[in-house]
Amino acid sequence: MVTLFKMIALYKQPKDKEQFDAHYYNTHVPLTEKIPGLRKIKVTKITGTPMGTESDYYLLCEMYYDNQEAFQEAMKTKEAKASAKDVMSFAGDLVTFMVGEEVEHE
Amino acid sequence: MVTLFKMIALYKQPKDKEQFDAHYYNTHVPLTEKIPGLRKIKVTKITGTPMGTESDYYLLCEMYYDNQEAFQEAMKTKEAKASAKDVMSFAGDLVTFMVGEEVEHE
Repeated sequence: MVTLFKMIALYKQPKDKEQFDAHYYNTHVPLTEKIPGLRKIKVTKITGTPMGTESDYYLLCEMYYDNQEAFQEAMKTKEAKASAKDVMSFAGDLVTFMVGEEVEHE
Repeated sequence: MVTLFKMIALYKQPKDKEQFDAHYYNTHVPLTEKIPGLRKIKVTKITGTPMGTESDYYLLCEMYYDNQEAFQEAMKTKEAKASAKDVMSFAGDLVTFMVGEEVEHE
């Protein structure tokens, strides 16, 4: 059973979605992609709830590292600090961060 | 660019983690796996925040379908209704559901 380590950033609905998207995709994702040790980024645009109503949440980002130690080392780098500073500048009031271990069931 | 459709269930910290885990892994996941059209399930155990503190959240489950139409058809089945009924019975006050489109950046 493969376990993957990931950091999750969950964003609530921004007031201005266009402005959020422009900053997120043009500035924040490229900054984040520079973090050493980051293996892949998955970005999920939340389109609503299963019932078809609007969700409180707007976007879920999953950032994969080899393991927790690799993640902790990555967090010490200037690239991680630049990404963190950036996210707080445009979404500090919207974002919740988590880390966890992902297992695929099939 | 590949876009995947998924439903997300995000659970807050349960009062009794052992009881939650027992029901989740022994009853809820097997019920969910029976839903027709479900392609894969990823379960992430939230271990904390990036700062090393406890998260408000306990578990993130991602359920993949071929597309939104396949998901909507799946939701009409008795297996989906059984899974939904089950989740409300043990975690109705803990769970938030979302649907969205996942894109991998590399």
